[in-house]
Formats: sequence, C-alpha cells, structure tokens
Amino acid sequence: MAESVWSDWFPVLRWARGYGRGQLGGDLTAAAVVTLLLIPQALAYAVLAGMPPVTGLYASIVPMAVYALMCSSNVLGPGPTALRSVMSAAAVGAVVTPGGDAFIATSAVLAVLVGVALLVMGALRMGFMAHFLSQPVLAGFITAGGLLIAMSQVGHLLGVPLASGDALAFARSLIARAGDAHGLTLAVGAASIVAMVVARRWGRMALTRLAIPAAVADVLVKAAPLLVMAAAIGAAHAFDAPARGVAVVGDIPRGLPGLSVAPLLTVPWTTVQALLLPALLIAAMTFVEQISIAQSMAARRGERLDANAEMRAMGAANVAAGLTGAFAIGASFARTTVVAESGGRTPAAGLYTAVLLALAALLLTPWLRALPMAVLAAVVLVSLGSLLDWASFRRNWHYSRADFAAQALTFVATLLVDLVSGLMVGVLASLALHLWRSSHPHIAVVGNVAGTEHYRNVRRHDVITHPHLLGLRVDESLFFANVHHLEQRIDAELAAQPAIRDVILQCTAVNDIDASALQVLTALNDRLRQRGVRLHLSEVKGPVMDRLRRSDFLQRLSGHIYLTHHQAVQALRAPPPDA
Amino acid sequence: MAESVWSDWFPVLRWARGYGRGQLGGDLTAAAVVTLLLIPQALAYAVLAGMPPVTGLYASIVPMAVYALMCSSNVLGPGPTALRSVMSAAAVGAVVTPGGDAFIATSAVLAVLVGVALLVMGALRMGFMAHFLSQPVLAGFITAGGLLIAMSQVGHLLGVPLASGDALAFARSLIARAGDAHGLTLAVGAASIVAMVVARRWGRMALTRLAIPAAVADVLVKAAPLLVMAAAIGAAHAFDAPARGVAVVGDIPRGLPGLSVAPLLTVPWTTVQALLLPALLIAAMTFVEQISIAQSMAARRGERLDANAEMRAMGAANVAAGLTGAFAIGASFARTTVVAESGGRTPAAGLYTAVLLALAALLLTPWLRALPMAVLAAVVLVSLGSLLDWASFRRNWHYSRADFAAQALTFVATLLVDLVSGLMVGVLASLALHLWRSSHPHIAVVGNVAGTEHYRNVRRHDVITHPHLLGLRVDESLFFANVHHLEQRIDAELAAQPAIRDVILQCTAVNDIDASALQVLTALNDRLRQRGVRLHLSEVKGPVMDRLRRSDFLQRLSGHIYLTHHQAVQALRAPPPDA
Repeated sequence: MAESVWSDWFPVLRWARGYGRGQLGGDLTAAAVVTLLLIPQALAYAVLAGMPPVTGLYASIVPMAVYALMCSSNVLGPGPTALRSVMSAAAVGAVVTPGGDAFIATSAVLAVLVGVALLVMGALRMGFMAHFLSQPVLAGFITAGGLLIAMSQVGHLLGVPLASGDALAFARSLIARAGDAHGLTLAVGAASIVAMVVARRWGRMALTRLAIPAAVADVLVKAAPLLVMAAAIGAAHAFDAPARGVAVVGDIPRGLPGLSVAPLLTVPWTTVQALLLPALLIAAMTFVEQISIAQSMAARRGERLDANAEMRAMGAANVAAGLTGAFAIGASFARTTVVAESGGRTPAAGLYTAVLLALAALLLTPWLRALPMAVLAAVVLVSLGSLLDWASFRRNWHYSRADFAAQALTFVATLLVDLVSGLMVGVLASLALHLWRSSHPHIAVVGNVAGTEHYRNVRRHDVITHPHLLGLRVDESLFFANVHHLEQRIDAELAAQPAIRDVILQCTAVNDIDASALQVLTALNDRLRQRGVRLHLSEVKGPVMDRLRRSDFLQRLSGHIYLTHHQAVQALRAPPPDA
Repeated sequence: MAESVWSDWFPVLRWARGYGRGQLGGDLTAAAVVTLLLIPQALAYAVLAGMPPVTGLYASIVPMAVYALMCSSNVLGPGPTALRSVMSAAAVGAVVTPGGDAFIATSAVLAVLVGVALLVMGALRMGFMAHFLSQPVLAGFITAGGLLIAMSQVGHLLGVPLASGDALAFARSLIARAGDAHGLTLAVGAASIVAMVVARRWGRMALTRLAIPAAVADVLVKAAPLLVMAAAIGAAHAFDAPARGVAVVGDIPRGLPGLSVAPLLTVPWTTVQALLLPALLIAAMTFVEQISIAQSMAARRGERLDANAEMRAMGAANVAAGLTGAFAIGASFARTTVVAESGGRTPAAGLYTAVLLALAALLLTPWLRALPMAVLAAVVLVSLGSLLDWASFRRNWHYSRADFAAQALTFVATLLVDLVSGLMVGVLASLALHLWRSSHPHIAVVGNVAGTEHYRNVRRHDVITHPHLLGLRVDESLFFANVHHLEQRIDAELAAQPAIRDVILQCTAVNDIDASALQVLTALNDRLRQRGVRLHLSEVKGPVMDRLRRSDFLQRLSGHIYLTHHQAVQALRAPPPDA
C-alpha cells in the first residue's frame, strides 16, 4: 500500500529498476538534441516574461529534474513557453513595475502559485475543472496570444520601445515610433529570422545534398537557432554592436540556480491575492495543453498515461521553478516531438537534459552578454507559427456558430483587453453557452411505433397517439435551470389540446432530479390535479426512484409510476369516463 | 400585427373592453381591503429600506397603476416588500452614507436599474436566467434575509441604535447596548406586536362571537395593523411620546409623488456601476418570487399566465418607482392572497388601490408625524414568519445532500457576510454543483437483453455481451466539460479488456456534440485506430448527424454509423479475424 502510493507519486521508482543500456543511448541523444533547441528558447522566453535571460535556463534545470522523477509520460518535458511567459509578464506587470527585483520575486511567486494550483487540482482529482477551457476558447486565446507575443517582439526588432499589452496600444505606439527604428538592430533581427527560416525549410535538404549523413543534418538543423546566436555573438564582439546602438543582453550572473526562498517572502500578501486568478487560469491552460500533448504522444507510442501524475509532476516543476528564481513553465509540443524523434525512451532523458543545461548555465553565460536582443526576438518570432490556429476558426464556423462565437469573443477580448481578461471572458462565454443549452433541454412528444413497444418523437416518426394522453420524453436530467422549461412545455401542450387527461413523463434520460426540480414537479402535479389532469412517470431510473422515495412526491402524485412507457400507455389508453 | 403587439405589452387593451359592473364590485372591495393592509407595510418597509416613510406610499401609487396596465395576472400587485427593502438598504448603504438626499436618489436609481434589468430580461426572453436561483438557494437566502430583517428592527424596538448588516455585528452591538434599552419604547413596540398577533390569531373568532358578520370581521382583522398604528398615534399625541424619549417618524412632506428625474441624474456613474450586480440579483429574485406566486394563483383560478408580460410589468413598475422617488419593489404573497380572497377579478383592482393610496398620501401624512418607530418595527416583525422556511432545510437534507449544502452555504454566507454576497455565493454554488454533475455524466456498458432488441446496463441487468465488443451508452450530450470523462472511461475499459476490437457508442441521449467534444472524439478515433480498435456510433439523432456531416469526422471515423444499437451488434458480433 505505502509503496504503491510512493510509486504513484514517483513513477521513477518503477521505471528505474528496468533501466539499462537499451534506454541510455536514445535518452542521451534526445537530451543533447533538445538542449540545443532549448537554450535559445529558454533565453528568449525569459526576456518575454520580463525576466533576466539566465532565468530561462533556471526555469529548465531543477524543474526538469523534478518532473522526470514524477511524470508518467516518457517524452514530455517542462520548460519556458512563449504563451506562459507573456501571460506571466502581463499578470505580474499588472501589480509590480517591470524591471526590478520585486518583478523577479513576484514572477517566481506566480510560478509557485501555478504549481500549487496544479498540485491541489491533482490531489482533489479536479482535473475536470481544467476542461472548462473549451477547445474553441483555447484556440481563440492561443491565436490571439501568438499575435500579442509577436507584437511584444517588434520593439526589440526595431530597436525602439513599443507598448504591447493590447493590440490598440501596440498599433498606436507603432505608428508613433516606427520612424525611430534603428537600422542596424532591424538588420540583425531580420537576418536572424531569414537564417532560421531558411535552415528550417531547406537546411536538411541542402545538407544531405552535401553528402552529410541525415542524422547529423537533422541535429544541425535543430541547432540552427543556437548557431545563429553564436554567429550573432561573434559579430557583435567583432563590430562592437553596443557602441553602434544595438541593444544587447548585457552582464548576467554566472552559475547554477540556488534555492531562493527569501526574495519570495518579500512579496506582500495583497500582491499574492491579485495573482490568484491569473495563476488559476495559467494552471488550467497548462494542464489542458500538457494533457493533449501527452495523450497524443502516448497514443502514438502505445503507452499508458496517468493524467493525475502528469498534473502533479507539472505542479511540482512549477513550484521548483519559482523556488529557484524562475517563472511559470509548461509543456511544449515542438520540444516533445524532438525528444520523441531523437529516440527518447524514458523520463531519464529529462534528467540528462537538466545536467546539460546546468553545464550551459555554468559555461555559456559569459558569452551571452554580447547577444543582441533582436536575435532573441527573432527566436521568439520564428517559433510562433504553431500558435496561430486560423483553421480552427473556419472549422468551428462551419460546425457550430455558438462555438465560433465563443472563440471569436475570446480572440477579440484577448487582443483588445489583455491575456487574463481574454481567457476569463472565454471561460465565462463557454459556461454561459453550456448553461443556456442545458436550460433548454430537448423535449419530445412521443407516440407508439405501430406493432412495437417503441415510442418515438411524433415530429419525426409516424406514430400512434391518443387524444387524452400526452407522452413527453425529456432528454436531460431535471434541475433548477431547466425544470421551468418542462413546466412551460406541459402548459403549452395542455392549452393546445384541452382533451388531455393524463400526462406521462418518459424519464429514460433523466439521471437526476434535484430539489428545485422536485419542488416544481410537486407544484405542477397539484396544479394539474386542480384541472382534472393526472401526472404519471414511466421508466424512472433506479437511483432517481430511490431518491423520490425519500420525499413526499410519490404520496402526492396524482397518477402512477410505470416500469415502461408502453405499460403506461396500455393502462391509460382507454378514454376516461368524462371524455 | 401592430395591434397584437400593443395588446401584448398592454393587456389592459384586451380586458378593458369586457369590463363592466360584474367585475367592478369585487375589484373595489379587494382594493379597499388591500389598501388597509398596504398602508402600514408601505411605511414600515420604507423605513427598512432606509427611506422616508412616505416613499413607501409612493412606491405603490404610480407603480401599481403602471403594473395594472401591463400585467397578465388578475390578482398580483407590486409594492414594497421586506426582503427587497433590506437588500436595497444594504446595496445602497455600501456606496452612499445612509440618511441623506444622496441615499434617497441612489435608492431610486437602484429601483430603475432593477426595472431595466427586468425589462431587458423580458425583451430578450432571458427569463431562464432567473432560474439559476435554485429553490434551496432561494429558500436559504430568504430565511437568512428574514433573520437579518428581524435583527434590523430590534434597534427600533429597544430604542437604541444597533448594527444590523450581518449577524455577528448585530450580536456584538446587541450585547454592548442591550442595557441602554429605552423602557417606554420597548413597551410600545411589544404592545403593538401582541395586539397584531392576537388580532391575527383570534380576532376573527372573537368578532364573530360578538355577532359581527364574517365579512366585516375579516376586514377588521386585516385592518388591525392600521388600527394599531392609529391607536399608537393617538396615544403618542395624548402622552407626548417624543418628550418621553420615544422616537417617532417626525415631519413628512404632504402630497402626491411627482416625477423626480433630476435627483437621479446627480448620482455619479461609478455608483451606478457598483449597483449593477445588486440590481441584477434583486431583479432575478423578484422575477422568481413573482412568477411562483402568479403561477400558483393562476392555477388556483384556472387562468392563463404570460410570464414575459409579468416580467415587463414588474420592470416598468420598478422604473416608475425609481422615477417617483421610491425604491425597489416586488410582489407579496400575503397581499396577493388578500386581493384574491376579497373578490379581486381584474387588474383594475390595482388601479383602484393606486387611487386609494394617493388619497392616503394626501390626507394621512399630517397624522403620521407622531407615529412611534417601534410600531413600524412591530409591523415588520409580525410579517416575517412567512420568510423563515426551516422546513425546506429538513426536506433538502433528506432528499439531496448537495442541495442542502448549497442551501446551508447560502444561509451562512448571507447571515455572516451580507445579503448581496450571500445570494451571489448561492448562485455560484448552484452553478458549480450543476457543472460538476454535468461534467460527470452517467456512462453505462450495455449488453443485449436475451430474445429482444433492447440493450441495458450490464451492472443492473442480466445481458449478453461479446468479449471483443464494447457497447457504451452516454446519458448526456457531449460537450467540453464531460467529453474527457468519456475518453477516460473508454481508456479504462480498453485497459481492463484488451480483447476489445470494436467500441460502439450508443448515442440515444446525446442531443448535441459541441466543437470541443468533436475534436476529442476525432483524436480518440485516431488513437483507437493506432491500437487496432474501431469506433462506431449507433442511434445518432437527426440534428447531431446533420452537424457531423458538416465536419470531417465521418470521413475519418474508423468504424460505421448504425441506425440501432442492435444492428451494430449484429454486424460486429462475429469475432474479428485476428481474435
């Protein structure tokens, strides 16, 4: 028992036993390749989060190791992502002025809060909460987020500070400041973008034509952003870029991340409270994205996935990120694919990646001071394509206008207001849509299919009905928000057919009757009785019947309960004496 | 067409044509009796709302006339109610200091907002929104509201100012100040309560024993509070109550309410914004109460009710209340019963009541200045019994613990925090409960009932299944919050029974598949295909099928769509070649 709990929380206790040479090669290769991809992204996304570049490496080292010990997916890894970084910057920027120690500490607190939210959701098995981010809302939000991220990088690319919180502020400041663009900065950024796009599109083909083995070509293509950074650092040194007005990263501390709890304790409680809602939203989004990536990978590889273990592992990774001075992190589809394609076999690949990144933090940092900011902006921009999901807008428009409306509303609110409000608007729109739908349940008048015991909708089938009998099927559980709809429908049917003397509710799809619905049904029964109409129920499910027995409804019911709708109609089809 | 719209909005255009002597007698009697009851309540509830007593009459004159022209119920009438008054006092008191012109103007603005909310809900046919106040939440709220109202009157009764916003503040100030109680004030209040309770309980019996005709006795009993007030005014004059320290109403303006828009325009926009949420909640509560009263009356009298007309009429009445300097109003069950019992036949009774109240405002006001406040408190206290619904707590505890929890939470939050927060907590608790339930739909593995074409839950019935076939019935529409539950269930079933090659979803109860659910089903289909498992659907409803045709799901589906679940099992029951 105790051992099973331990190995539930730390699946490493299970897979480490069978670990051997068979896995080592693949895991090491995958770790090396993903490190090449991760270093530039980590630095760029740290800047996107408003944090010192080196914290991007910190956000990957300890968290990746923690995650590897706790996760159930063999190829997923946590790390900085563009969307979470820009959300972190927006949420923290709303309560603390950017660019100081307070901003760094508050970002770390946000990461801890995101982690705690994930751990709590995992412990309470509340993963379902995260699903209130519906797919159209998430797609609308991520697409708008991608555009906002692109806007936030334009300033670095042009070498002028631009507003980037919302689309209108960006447009206004772009119009006002575009003329001040710094030519050399723009040239450096544009050249970096071109180099990375060319490498990604045609690099592999060109290298294999040069008779370079495919495996080596693949690694070189993935290292392209890192090579561009190296080249840019070299050029910046050679031509003294800072003196020519090109903004560079500047001095950054060398070394490994340490446990830094003291700065977190300086963050006031009111700030923590203001971060709770953003933390919850980031946690929900992180979980939904992570699970969809992990599920598609597990299916492709024929592996089992434990969603609760994933939630816990990502929660612990975020807490670790916060405690080592970094910011909120999540799973990346691109990096996960790279690990899988490079032969990653077990979570140990994450441990090796953590070691390689620690070496990078120790050895590379002195070189980074000359890295132009425009190159980091270029790294961000070329990775944004996967966020812009225009196809989903078209698909949802065709499939469901209501879903499209929720998506469009989220997109517009995110672009024009801010990331947190946009996502909140989307969640509320999804909920409102769901409530509207479930408070208008499908109710069908049913009649007998001749020669059978089946009862079907009179509008769709040729069925037998009786003028003094009304058979109604409600296709939903009865609860406070929809029971009035049923009541109104019965009133309307009775008004249209005054001959009705018996109403039979077919309860095939009624899985629950809550206290409000029970009260309305009781009142309805009394009202119908005063009009000389009896109320009957048929096909009531076991649990619903058990509960009705605990109320006085069955004693007050003017009619009967029938096992099947057919039995009810058989018993009641003789015209009443007063008809 | 145009005429029908006019008479939809103003049903008076329909009923006025047939109006004659037959209705006049009953309507006039009802108007006279309800006026006797309404005058003391109007004055008392105005004080409860923190408003000058005369505004209680204003709140009934023009609003009652407006309502009579627009309503569809023959016996309902709008006017001050204890619960709305205390909610108005709490909402307005949260933004404006009580006891000045700003408080009066802001209360009037709140009434206008409540009215506009009702009119908008009526116009958009959003009456269903009001039903998100579930019955247990409403009962919990009203009971706590009744207690808070009682607490608010204790100060007037003891002649010392007490805090009354929440139960704890009240308890603390009662303990601190109870010793300062003013004996004579308490005696006046206690005597009034005793007189009114005695009159209500035994008055009719005593009067008929004195050979007074039953009809006259009834009217006298209903006039008891008014008679108590008259006696108190007489006694206060005779013994110069103010000089002896008994608080009295004091000078109040004489005359009719006028259109007073100018003071409303002085209320700042930020105040209006702060009142929006309270206004929405009061509007929703007003509508739910009004409809439940109107429906039970219409059923008892065999009349038809137009819920939208009721909502519009109550909306217009509240706007009229605000524009004539009064506060938010609603329907009262007690007064409605009185109108029905005294022979009210048409909404014209409301018009006559308005005229009688106008006369009262003109003629009675000079007498009111000597009325002790403690008597008004007594009027409020004896009317509170109907609000305290302890039976519903016991009933819900037995019927549904979840409903009971929502009720208890609302009750406690209302008592300990405040009225608006309490109601909000209740609405959110109801919604959370609904979302939790609908995101955990009932899913049954189904098998064939031998010798029939019926398929039933394998856990409850003795049915035939096949090891390579999994038949699942989902008893709810598939949407973003519950589709993951289905996915996890299928994964669990496949893990438990690796022989499964075909999964058939019986879609009998699936009335809708939203875009998120479609995406998950598509991904699930792809995942199952990779494991060599086919996905089939059976008994898909027409509208759902139409929509699926507008996506690429049917092209990607690895299995087939079957008209009935039985056809699916017949087609697939032969073991697959690889089994």
